[in-house]
Parts: sequence; structure tokens; C-alpha cells
Amino acid sequence: MTGVEHIGIAVKKLSDSIPLFEKLLNTPCYKTESVASEGVHTAFFKTGATKIELLEASKEESPIAKFIDKKGEGIHHIAFEVADIEAEMKRLTAEGFVLLNDIPKQGADNKRVCFLHPKGTNGVLIELCQEIQ
Amino acid sequence: MTGVEHIGIAVKKLSDSIPLFEKLLNTPCYKTESVASEGVHTAFFKTGATKIELLEASKEESPIAKFIDKKGEGIHHIAFEVADIEAEMKRLTAEGFVLLNDIPKQGADNKRVCFLHPKGTNGVLIELCQEIQ
Repeated sequence: MTGVEHIGIAVKKLSDSIPLFEKLLNTPCYKTESVASEGVHTAFFKTGATKIELLEASKEESPIAKFIDKKGEGIHHIAFEVADIEAEMKRLTAEGFVLLNDIPKQGADNKRVCFLHPKGTNGVLIELCQEIQ
Repeated sequence: MTGVEHIGIAVKKLSDSIPLFEKLLNTPCYKTESVASEGVHTAFFKTGATKIELLEASKEESPIAKFIDKKGEGIHHIAFEVADIEAEMKRLTAEGFVLLNDIPKQGADNKRVCFLHPKGTNGVLIELCQEIQ
């Protein structure tokens, strides 16, 4: 892992939260993107080397809708950048961590991603992500 | 704000979570520190430009004990590095954010810190921190 690529935050409405985070971070939202397969609309902010990604559910069965129903709005996941996602998935599996997807899937922001089961990581949902070249 | 300085994660037992995060992040814990005034024992990991800070309650009335009672283990806060904490506190107050302390207080890792009320930030507990020179 080479560092924290982004922090994902679940919000009810991007239209409310984008201006809020623009004020908080004192920087404009530089990109919005929808990932239909994940059921999310996203909005990105740059802050130093780490991005902030706001996540709004785009359908009822979205994992973000379920998260907000259960826990309310708040920090949803930490994404770590990796140089070789398959190698990192193999290393973590050998260490006893449980992957939520066996094959990297398409994420937002031109990334291949894999999530780890939060039961094995002190309740923290961890994403591995690798930029698609 | 110049970037994400660290991400704070509430855990029940550092003695269990330090080896777990060493495996997860593939890097050793490089420092532990207790902050009696905050009721926490902390452990730090470096991952790129952003640190991971594990937080264990050191007394019953610790905010970390209350957080875990209510929400379970998991991500507790995001800390943003600022160049001038008083100026940033003033800017955020003027933008309508609510500070949890009016004067910067001593945090872990040689920092002066201030927290923002999570009700004004989509449920995210935000820390501002400035390195003490």
C-alpha cells in the first residue's frame, strides 16, 4: 500500500453536501461521477495527497442507502492506493483478511477496486484501489 | 487545510489491533503515546503522506469508550493539517461550522488541535491540527 488515496463519506444529498464540503475544505468539488454498478453518485475534492469522495445512493438497494439507514451519514470507507491490486489481494488473503470481491471491479475515478470485510479490520471498510493505466 | 494528516480509528484493545494493522498496512507501528487529558492511548502507522492513528480508551469516561459503546469499533475522525489553526478556526466559524473547543488544545503527536461538531459536517468528526514548532 502506497498511501491513502481517498476517504469515502456517505451523504444523503450531494446537492447539500457539495457546497458544505466546499466551505469546509475551502476548495471546489473538481469532479462528479456516477457508478451505476455500485449504485452511487460521487463527488471529489482534493486536499493534499488524499481525496475526499462524497457518496450518494443512486438507487434504493445501494450499499450507501443501507449504510445511511443503519448508521446515518458519515465516514464510509478508507481507500488505499496499491501498485499491484492482485498481489495485494493475495498478500492480504494469506494474512487472513476476507475480501468482499475475488476479482477487482470497476470503481469510480478510473480505478480497479477491491473491498475487505470490515469484520476483520476493526469495523473499518477498507478499499484497495489501483489506477487503470 | 493542507491535507489529511491522519485518520483516527477507535479500537477496543491496542494489543489486538496493533498487530492487525501491521499486517493490513504491511508497515510497523512506529509510535505509541498516551494523552491523559483526552483519555486515550494511541498508536501510529505511516502510509504515504497520511498517518493512521488507532485510539483506545484509557478511562471509562473517554470519548473513545462512549463512541465504541454507541457505534462499535471503526473510523472515529479525519484530521486535517492546517498551517494556522487560529485562522482556520476563525474562517470555519464564519462559514457557520461549530467548534467543539474555542481554544486549540494539546493533542497527540506534538499537535495543537480543534474539533468541529459532527452535526454540521454530515456526521463526520473533523479535527484540525497544527504541528507545534
